[in-house]
Amino acid sequence: MEIVNIAEKLGSFTEHWSPKIIGELNGQQIRLSKFKGESVWHHHENEDQMFLVIKGELTLGFREGDKVLNEGEFIIVPKGVEHKPSAEEEVSVLTFEPARALNT
Amino acid sequence: MEIVNIAEKLGSFTEHWSPKIIGELNGQQIRLSKFKGESVWHHHENEDQMFLVIKGELTLGFREGDKVLNEGEFIIVPKGVEHKPSAEEEVSVLTFEPARALNT
Repeated sequence: MEIVNIAEKLGSFTEHWSPKIIGELNGQQIRLSKFKGESVWHHHENEDQMFLVIKGELTLGFREGDKVLNEGEFIIVPKGVEHKPSAEEEVSVLTFEPARALNT
Repeated sequence: MEIVNIAEKLGSFTEHWSPKIIGELNGQQIRLSKFKGESVWHHHENEDQMFLVIKGELTLGFREGDKVLNEGEFIIVPKGVEHKPSAEEEVSVLTFEPARALNT
């Protein structure tokens, strides 16, 4: 069993849109990402996904409008719901999703 | 879809050892707790459990020795592993575990 320090993990990479797996439990993965700029519209067929903002501001586009998340806030995007992450400035995000999750 | 502010949720209760469910995805629950003092030795037969420290310092006793987690650190306790949470001062902890998880 290893203690994971999130800030330390954040310091270990600089790439955007390149999630790092930092933990796994019950078939779910904890991933750490840095986003900057815009992703594309997508959804996950069978998986809910949690976005927790560690540092910065995250915009999640939904078909019914944008939601803006700040540090210490999270949202759960249910399976099948289209979304588009974006961030004007770099944002650090912890996501939680099944190990099998792929973008569609 | 609701944006959950963790600090706000922490401000909404004061009881110790009384987890609040603040999210659910893929059959897993996100629970928020305040610990102070000592819990008892226990394990979870079939569930891994993640402890993420939001504020304060958490001691997790294991049969091979204690581990101390600070803010922004987490650990995943695999199923079957005996552990005993404790905290000299109040600590706020986010846990992640299957919805069915019960202490044994």
